[in-house]
Amino acid sequence: MLNFDSILAAIAVEIRPLFGQGKIADYIPALARVPNEQFGIALRTADGREAYAGDAHTPFSIQSISKVFTLTLAMQELGDRLWERIGREPSGDPFNSLIQLEHEQGVPRNPFINAGAIVVADRLVSRLPDTQRAVRQFVSSLCGEEIAFDEEVARSEAETGFRNIALANFIKSFGKLDNPVEQVLDLYFHQCALSMSCVQLARACAYLCRDGASALRDQRVLNERQTRRINALMLTCGTYDAAGEFAFRIGLPSKSGVGGGIVAVLPDRLTVCVWSPELGPSGNSLAGMRALELFVEKTKLSVF
Amino acid sequence: MLNFDSILAAIAVEIRPLFGQGKIADYIPALARVPNEQFGIALRTADGREAYAGDAHTPFSIQSISKVFTLTLAMQELGDRLWERIGREPSGDPFNSLIQLEHEQGVPRNPFINAGAIVVADRLVSRLPDTQRAVRQFVSSLCGEEIAFDEEVARSEAETGFRNIALANFIKSFGKLDNPVEQVLDLYFHQCALSMSCVQLARACAYLCRDGASALRDQRVLNERQTRRINALMLTCGTYDAAGEFAFRIGLPSKSGVGGGIVAVLPDRLTVCVWSPELGPSGNSLAGMRALELFVEKTKLSVF
Amino acid sequence: MLNFDSILAAIAVEIRPLFGQGKIADYIPALARVPNEQFGIALRTADGREAYAGDAHTPFSIQSISKVFTLTLAMQELGDRLWERIGREPSGDPFNSLIQLEHEQGVPRNPFINAGAIVVADRLVSRLPDTQRAVRQFVSSLCGEEIAFDEEVARSEAETGFRNIALANFIKSFGKLDNPVEQVLDLYFHQCALSMSCVQLARACAYLCRDGASALRDQRVLNERQTRRINALMLTCGTYDAAGEFAFRIGLPSKSGVGGGIVAVLPDRLTVCVWSPELGPSGNSLAGMRALELFVEKTKLSVF
Amino acid sequence: MLNFDSILAAIAVEIRPLFGQGKIADYIPALARVPNEQFGIALRTADGREAYAGDAHTPFSIQSISKVFTLTLAMQELGDRLWERIGREPSGDPFNSLIQLEHEQGVPRNPFINAGAIVVADRLVSRLPDTQRAVRQFVSSLCGEEIAFDEEVARSEAETGFRNIALANFIKSFGKLDNPVEQVLDLYFHQCALSMSCVQLARACAYLCRDGASALRDQRVLNERQTRRINALMLTCGTYDAAGEFAFRIGLPSKSGVGGGIVAVLPDRLTVCVWSPELGPSGNSLAGMRALELFVEKTKLSVF
Repeated sequence: MLNFDSILAAIAVEIRPLFGQGKIADYIPALARVPNEQFGIALRTADGREAYAGDAHTPFSIQSISKVFTLTLAMQELGDRLWERIGREPSGDPFNSLIQLEHEQGVPRNPFINAGAIVVADRLVSRLPDTQRAVRQFVSSLCGEEIAFDEEVARSEAETGFRNIALANFIKSFGKLDNPVEQVLDLYFHQCALSMSCVQLARACAYLCRDGASALRDQRVLNERQTRRINALMLTCGTYDAAGEFAFRIGLPSKSGVGGGIVAVLPDRLTVCVWSPELGPSGNSLAGMRALELFVEKTKLSVF
Repeated sequence: MLNFDSILAAIAVEIRPLFGQGKIADYIPALARVPNEQFGIALRTADGREAYAGDAHTPFSIQSISKVFTLTLAMQELGDRLWERIGREPSGDPFNSLIQLEHEQGVPRNPFINAGAIVVADRLVSRLPDTQRAVRQFVSSLCGEEIAFDEEVARSEAETGFRNIALANFIKSFGKLDNPVEQVLDLYFHQCALSMSCVQLARACAYLCRDGASALRDQRVLNERQTRRINALMLTCGTYDAAGEFAFRIGLPSKSGVGGGIVAVLPDRLTVCVWSPELGPSGNSLAGMRALELFVEKTKLSVF
Repeated sequence: MLNFDSILAAIAVEIRPLFGQGKIADYIPALARVPNEQFGIALRTADGREAYAGDAHTPFSIQSISKVFTLTLAMQELGDRLWERIGREPSGDPFNSLIQLEHEQGVPRNPFINAGAIVVADRLVSRLPDTQRAVRQFVSSLCGEEIAFDEEVARSEAETGFRNIALANFIKSFGKLDNPVEQVLDLYFHQCALSMSCVQLARACAYLCRDGASALRDQRVLNERQTRRINALMLTCGTYDAAGEFAFRIGLPSKSGVGGGIVAVLPDRLTVCVWSPELGPSGNSLAGMRALELFVEKTKLSVF
Repeated sequence: MLNFDSILAAIAVEIRPLFGQGKIADYIPALARVPNEQFGIALRTADGREAYAGDAHTPFSIQSISKVFTLTLAMQELGDRLWERIGREPSGDPFNSLIQLEHEQGVPRNPFINAGAIVVADRLVSRLPDTQRAVRQFVSSLCGEEIAFDEEVARSEAETGFRNIALANFIKSFGKLDNPVEQVLDLYFHQCALSMSCVQLARACAYLCRDGASALRDQRVLNERQTRRINALMLTCGTYDAAGEFAFRIGLPSKSGVGGGIVAVLPDRLTVCVWSPELGPSGNSLAGMRALELFVEKTKLSVF
């Protein structure tokens, strides 16, 4: 049996030489001022064992990792109808998704690019009254602790998020957004501003390695088939333009955020969350990616 | 000497079979309810002779033709510095300019695509206090009559202009827009809502065939070189994706608008303005394009 | 323990209503004249159990499935240096890879699109004298039977393969092809013309579910890490523009060919090969895709 | 009346500081070894006056200027049917035409990009037996002197022309090339290898400023309408991605070649040919572009 505590502790040491080699997201002050020499890692097995190392209890801005939670909620609410407005293919575009939105008439390629998450947010706004509260409560219930929005981050995102405002209006121009742009983006900017630690995220995402059953009270979050599908999407589309590289080097369904967090899943076995604020050239946490690679090397755990 | 009155009268008859074959712009109600069986044509020679036929005194929404006026103002204000933020090449993209904006980091290909005109509007907002009034006064002074905004059109454009809002935010995301998006678009939506007749437009654009001297009081609007340059831009970029087709079939620098108007210039000789609300597949007035083609056939006047 | 014989037999019945609903590849006569109402399925477990149903012994043109074999050979020969000339990301382009080749200066996105396989072929031509024979012998040794090229298919591919000739010359124009285009394409057209049955393919690909050890004499084909990487590439890039859909619906690393074959891998467990000549809109075998989906539903085996 | 001799002489002096600032086309040895400090300029008025300065009698490789001659021949042979396979719009793509060929299913945007000229060549091969000889005789008859192919250049083009081979095969893959790729490209590579001087080119192109009547025996080459159309195409598409810049700065229909030549037309007035082998960033002759700009400044002759 693997000794996860010592494996994670070793990883937390091995990644240290990477401090200083990446670049912290600096498009908003609240992210820019996060101290760079931080690294946390936490895992939770399907049967509830937990292990962690480093800054695993420090909360950080989960940013795009929130797309997993809103997608899950939208699958609960809409089932397969969700896919009428979003694709499931990797975006593959070195530039960005606006080009593909244009080619494909306002239908984002997948729910993990910004355009796709904005469409997911629009679907939730249509279904859930007080949507922000619903999202926060859902995530809180998943990890059994009260999770909060970092309102300063949410406000900064709104003030500087011209590209996301452009995306939302562009989708709206194709008639593919039902609610007012401001309302949809307000949810989107808030979900990105959820503040969580590695331990909380590993716990909250436990349903992804448990065929859809939540960590804490064994509640059914999704059915088995839906859970498999989220994992498939994370593997093919969860890490921006580096999805192929992730699959190739790490081989675990993963979702990353510009706050430096990455959640990874080994179906039926465990979830693992890493965090370190400096990003590599692909926009994923530099030490985080390396940590996951080390984890797979040391444990031989991978879907492939 | 050409008898322009009889030539224009003949054209107004010859285009009649095209009524019913195009499609009126219907994205806002104020445009959609314009009666389709209308056609006007007016010309003004460099030495001040005027001729017209059909509905040449009926005001219509000039829409993108306004881009000529704002470009002219911006050239007055900024000279060659204007081109730091806008290119001068045809866009050539069958889809739309968002793709090119992305490839070219927020620098629109030319001032006659929407993205380019939005950047021009931003430059004017920076330079001219009460910019809307300045634009309206400039156009009024060019044709010697008070020209007004159609406020209903301006409001509708603002309410439904998601693509333009997307464009402006996208440019802003590249740091290439100095003023708030709302302020820039307020000017843009108003300039498109200027209401003018063929006779007024032929007169207002007279400086384009007079080396930069205005029709009425011989005022210098632009210098000779700048005037040539606007004509060059109109020829290569003035009619959306049909610029090549216009040059090929008509051979006059032209600028069209979705309201159905087209202004064309024969340098040193005349300006001509046609209007008919039904548009062809390229988004240019169907009868208007045919009228210009007939005009060139009958007069042998063309730059080529 | 799963009764694979009865599961495969059931699948072979269940897919029958799909006959007639797809379209056989007809760009060359030798493929066009294959009778459509055929379906085969074969699997081989990591420990050597085999099962099959339907036309599992009928040889067909393996086409792009051959890319797995040449990639394997190239990884043997070049190790990580192979990746200097080929990427590992999904292509994501609805159109085709020429656009991306252009954006990325002659470096194909991954080894499973045609451009990538042509670059792999060039690498092999540089390393292996009598490359065609080497490829054929490699595949023959993997399945323990003499495998042959269908020379008529190879000839037809060469006569009509204008797009592949374009791709190869385009890559050459970027200086990214070391050998003469004709020689590289001769290999490429031959590898696509390998003729194999489902049983043979399931056996030949066994190393992909056995950490790199071949089915027959337990020979090391690749090391464990390399094997995982091929599986990762198959999952993210193995089925043209439908890779996301495959991952989502099936969840097994897969490689398909226009001859109607698909090889799929469940690491550590089994390889399965399906074949049915009619293709669906994504260019993958219609009945083959459905068969894999049924297989996963019935066995609950998937990487996710 | 303008004194062209002194104007051209002055220009030949004024451009000298540009020597050394551009880059000679070096993709084939025969072009790479042309001495760089050369400049020629020649003009011919519609009524037959000629003037020249500098190296106006030195023959050079006309390269893409030949596209004007083959287009003219194809318009003679096919009239408007020619346009079934070629567009007339600027390409506008900063990269290159392969992308647009793909978007537009093998129909090149215009006859002056390489893809378009290859389609023109295919049309000529279908219509004219011994096509190369026909092209050479046509050009020779236009300037009243025997013009020859530089066979070394033609051979080098063929040996290194991978991108053109790619283009031709790509068009063929869409079924838009009737003749074998080799035969079409043999013509294309030869037409580019025609060797002519500025004086010869100004004379040969005289029909473009004479409503279609040739310089020497007043022969009808094209009708008036066709001639206007070639001029329109030269203005909008004749100088690669710099067509807008040319129109803006120079304002004359122009066609350039990588050999350093540029032919420009002022309809009803004159043709002018400049040559200097060093190219600027847009692939057009650096001194040649400046010379045309000086010419327009000094003479005030421009279509705008």
